[in-house]
Amino acid sequence: MATVLSTDQYFPEEDGGLSAQQISVARMGHAARLLLRAETLLPDTRTVLDLMCLPVTALWCRVLRFDPAAPDWPDRDRFVVPSTTMLPLLRAMLRLTGGKEQMALPLEYGRHPALEVAPGPAGQGVAAAAGMALAEQTLSRRFGRSLVNHRTWVLAQDSDLVTGVAMEAAQLAGRFGLDRLAVLVAPSATADLADFTDSLTRFSGSGWTVRKVDATNLPAITTALAATLRARKPTLIACLPSATATIPADQKTTPEEELTGQWSPTARRGASTRRSWLRRFARHRQRAEFEREHTARQPTLFHEDWQRAWQWRMRTALDTSTQESGLAALHALSDTRPELVCLTASSAYSVPPTVREQAGWRAPPTVPGGQECSIQEHGMAGMLNGLALHGGLLPCCAASMMTVDRMRSAMRMAAFMRQKVLYLLTDDGLALGDSGGAWQPVEQLASLRATPNLAVFRPGSAEETFKCWEAALQWQNGPAVLVLCPRQNTPQRLPAPAYGSAVRGGYVLKQPEKRQVTLIASGPEVAIALEASHHLAQRNINAAVVSIPCWELFAGQPASYRRTVLGNAGLRVGIEAASGFGWERWLGPDGLFVGMDDFGTSAPANALYERFGITAEAICEKVEHHLFASGAARGPSLYAPDQPRTRVRGPLLTRP
Amino acid sequence: MATVLSTDQYFPEEDGGLSAQQISVARMGHAARLLLRAETLLPDTRTVLDLMCLPVTALWCRVLRFDPAAPDWPDRDRFVVPSTTMLPLLRAMLRLTGGKEQMALPLEYGRHPALEVAPGPAGQGVAAAAGMALAEQTLSRRFGRSLVNHRTWVLAQDSDLVTGVAMEAAQLAGRFGLDRLAVLVAPSATADLADFTDSLTRFSGSGWTVRKVDATNLPAITTALAATLRARKPTLIACLPSATATIPADQKTTPEEELTGQWSPTARRGASTRRSWLRRFARHRQRAEFEREHTARQPTLFHEDWQRAWQWRMRTALDTSTQESGLAALHALSDTRPELVCLTASSAYSVPPTVREQAGWRAPPTVPGGQECSIQEHGMAGMLNGLALHGGLLPCCAASMMTVDRMRSAMRMAAFMRQKVLYLLTDDGLALGDSGGAWQPVEQLASLRATPNLAVFRPGSAEETFKCWEAALQWQNGPAVLVLCPRQNTPQRLPAPAYGSAVRGGYVLKQPEKRQVTLIASGPEVAIALEASHHLAQRNINAAVVSIPCWELFAGQPASYRRTVLGNAGLRVGIEAASGFGWERWLGPDGLFVGMDDFGTSAPANALYERFGITAEAICEKVEHHLFASGAARGPSLYAPDQPRTRVRGPLLTRP
Repeated sequence: MATVLSTDQYFPEEDGGLSAQQISVARMGHAARLLLRAETLLPDTRTVLDLMCLPVTALWCRVLRFDPAAPDWPDRDRFVVPSTTMLPLLRAMLRLTGGKEQMALPLEYGRHPALEVAPGPAGQGVAAAAGMALAEQTLSRRFGRSLVNHRTWVLAQDSDLVTGVAMEAAQLAGRFGLDRLAVLVAPSATADLADFTDSLTRFSGSGWTVRKVDATNLPAITTALAATLRARKPTLIACLPSATATIPADQKTTPEEELTGQWSPTARRGASTRRSWLRRFARHRQRAEFEREHTARQPTLFHEDWQRAWQWRMRTALDTSTQESGLAALHALSDTRPELVCLTASSAYSVPPTVREQAGWRAPPTVPGGQECSIQEHGMAGMLNGLALHGGLLPCCAASMMTVDRMRSAMRMAAFMRQKVLYLLTDDGLALGDSGGAWQPVEQLASLRATPNLAVFRPGSAEETFKCWEAALQWQNGPAVLVLCPRQNTPQRLPAPAYGSAVRGGYVLKQPEKRQVTLIASGPEVAIALEASHHLAQRNINAAVVSIPCWELFAGQPASYRRTVLGNAGLRVGIEAASGFGWERWLGPDGLFVGMDDFGTSAPANALYERFGITAEAICEKVEHHLFASGAARGPSLYAPDQPRTRVRGPLLTRP
Repeated sequence: MATVLSTDQYFPEEDGGLSAQQISVARMGHAARLLLRAETLLPDTRTVLDLMCLPVTALWCRVLRFDPAAPDWPDRDRFVVPSTTMLPLLRAMLRLTGGKEQMALPLEYGRHPALEVAPGPAGQGVAAAAGMALAEQTLSRRFGRSLVNHRTWVLAQDSDLVTGVAMEAAQLAGRFGLDRLAVLVAPSATADLADFTDSLTRFSGSGWTVRKVDATNLPAITTALAATLRARKPTLIACLPSATATIPADQKTTPEEELTGQWSPTARRGASTRRSWLRRFARHRQRAEFEREHTARQPTLFHEDWQRAWQWRMRTALDTSTQESGLAALHALSDTRPELVCLTASSAYSVPPTVREQAGWRAPPTVPGGQECSIQEHGMAGMLNGLALHGGLLPCCAASMMTVDRMRSAMRMAAFMRQKVLYLLTDDGLALGDSGGAWQPVEQLASLRATPNLAVFRPGSAEETFKCWEAALQWQNGPAVLVLCPRQNTPQRLPAPAYGSAVRGGYVLKQPEKRQVTLIASGPEVAIALEASHHLAQRNINAAVVSIPCWELFAGQPASYRRTVLGNAGLRVGIEAASGFGWERWLGPDGLFVGMDDFGTSAPANALYERFGITAEAICEKVEHHLFASGAARGPSLYAPDQPRTRVRGPLLTRP
């Protein structure tokens, strides 16, 4: 059905000297160079842009699937420019392809449709491009090459290649065989060529095809691009300055002259490619599905199907922890939403050896429709952005809560671009107690909550986990995070809300007659708060219990709702196995926080909960103590830093 | 003066078959294997440990400078075991070298002197080891090989090598020529050997010597170790399982028998090496200096000298921004404290092109006594931990505030291990407005403040920057961060404190007769708050101004002090060009926060300050409005999330 263009169509065989097409490319390259000359650029930038001018022109003239009339049609080639430095080259290409309407728009992410990705830290763009290539691979398997048949090109800088995120993404791209990904790069003016060659070696050692071409030699460029179209691996095209040839002297033409000449066929080619795609699309049997997924609509009866699938899976779950429930919901989602792509870090299912040796333990099943990303979480998170930016997919990842520190740069880009990415973060709380103190998340929750556009969910029961999953899917502002905990004595369901509901971010679980104390908790600590409220009731203290699974949603509720939930008077106690930073928002100046204001230590989870006083008994005592002492001096005394540990280490110079 | 041991002393030439020494190593390897057999290990772990047993034994028997009587003497070889998985091998080595006192200690960081680094995320240990090797290189240049002459050995896992942080650190190690760094690694039992070989290629492409040895072939191991001692590059020794040979069958000895036999000479060799070092040390002319630096004492009159050097440098500073002042203090510090090592990321001095083209602009001088780390901030931050752990140095780095996201994993390890590392973070606030919205730090400050043991300083004037520098040096709990801003109209000095002082973390700058409003600010926003207070005074509103450069220090003050500074009644207004997350701690439930609750946009800094309403006029109006409306409903209304931006992007399927 599909007419896949062969390589020869792009690059007919040449018969000595430059072919007519190559001459036209060379003239276009010259026109682009004239346009660059009009820009105010730093000398170093100008050198690199001049060097990349001919390869990029050859790509745009002969290879790139790009229609200036519809720069965002789904089956276009993605031309990713991840840095502001290289943008003038994209601007020149857009100018020459003659999309006049688009030239009126500023070349900024979200405002110009041809800008595939927002400029970000070095390397993020390469990772995002790898994600786009993965999206293409995934979609072409589902819809076939007649609907999905495009490539991802990256105009990178040499500084992109040396970053950890790019190297992780490169490894993943090599492992996944993303043969439709190609990176064009030139050494910067100040770069050491040996360093640059080292970068190429590292990419070559990550399963990539690396081609070096003379950036002034058009036949060589043409050959390299043609070879890229046939490649079975991701390709890195290193455009090197020529040792002998120089850039040809200026011909007496202006860009405007060229526009009326040779270039317009490029735009015509793009338009014709798109029209034939639209014809194929119109009669494609998966058209409705493709359209639904590309407009991010939910299938009919989706929620009912999803919930049923989740309930079915929970029947065979090992326990009622939020982690089991959240992962069951993920599996159920992949049953009902084929556009789900889940990248999984190996940390997501990290199991302490002691647990692994327990009877009845079995390895959790891998998530279908996804890829295993080992421990390259930063590269993975960068690729998720590309999956989201590509469109037509619902990108999701599973990783351990601790790896957030490595993914943050990429998560921030997702939040900035308001992309719908779902992060399932497992092993929160004190779960990993056995394997060392530095491993327990402490400040991660606070740092996620401080990020704009990002919603953080920390559910307190198996059922609440599913509700939070639904709310995360519906969150419109950007990415969402589900923080999951393997604590085994988390209840299947919490009591019915006494006021409000989980989808409002915070609600009252238990409402006594006359509220003296409000226990506010999230995650598995909600169950502890409920238990503490029973203890307090025995001591004639009326404690309400509030679950607050999502601060962002709760903050969006009317002030009257929040006031009713949090209680107008009495002591407020926050309970969360994490840093108390930011909790004053809900507790007020006289509140009490029970959590971790230091790193954990190596001990089993239950012992750690006791050590940090996150148990019903300890909370009960603290509340009683506070209530009795409440006549005394008020002030934010709970946040005084603890005493420094004695220094154990240090050189021993004097011992004989 | 120094007697540097030659390679031949370790490995005498063999004359066919195993030499006597090699036979003794083989017997020790066997003893170690018996000890491992007594541990409860997962099968995969056991395979790797068994494989590494002979190479590690050979290293400990013949090469490692280690004295069981003083496992922490300064010129020991560092044997870094960065994962809990590999610890049983270290335990076996310690057991066999017979340090009985040490065997009583648990093998945990901070409790056992032989554990050089706390287990952390994959790759962090390799980066820390690179830092230790850099420390050795730096110190040996200052004190000569007679005092500093050791190596750093890492017992890594293959998963360490594929991480971004390890690859960044490997590039830096290659670039710095850290030839005394060697990594021993074996493929894990489940690893794909092709993937493992790819890892080796990447290290080889980062300026490393990569040696593959058969892990069962003792002469080959011996040769590889001997070659490592002569290497001119960092070395990676890949210990591969043998295709033919198998691990020799059990001989009928027990570890206890071996202890009395061949191994004790190893301990004797270590003791004798250390004794001769102590003799050289006793008569070394730099002894006092070496001792002072290794015990982290300050030189006499240090503060006076430093301040004078800083003042001298400030005379030629371009402006009075906290960034200029902080970097001047860094340069002044390196004049007075030769143990300062400053790693600099290229982002530290990133200058927008518009500024760079201004008349009078000159490139800032590079920091002496340091290394340039390009954009490999994650590897750099990992190396800083190694520099600190090595001892004898004052590690410091300069990088852009935005790169915190990439350094966080490593910073967290520094905080957990309470290591003294100083991070100078430049380009805070809205300075980088021109180059794009994702580049402005928003949530970074909050996330740093939420980290335990870490002190965050954000000074408000050139002079306060120096005071914060002093306080950061004196912070005992762990690392410290100085957040610096290039805002040019920051004052040289703030008014004299009306109450308190900067070293207490927060103090009153301006105290009106009857306080109605308290403006609380940090960084360059203090000057804006002062200006706003003048505006308010004209409208007959008495506003106090509080500068709060360090939350951690301020939280450690007595409650009465904090109450006096923040004011008992009236409106509190927080002003900071960052997310307001966590500010409720100081503002209380009715406070007002002026800052950024969204990502920035691309515009010049001043325009952005106006857009976010961080100007004296806008603050003044907000305060007035709030005071007039204060009779109305109270509640945390300021934290409602903003409206979602309209989605600009999305596939256009219907256009013809």
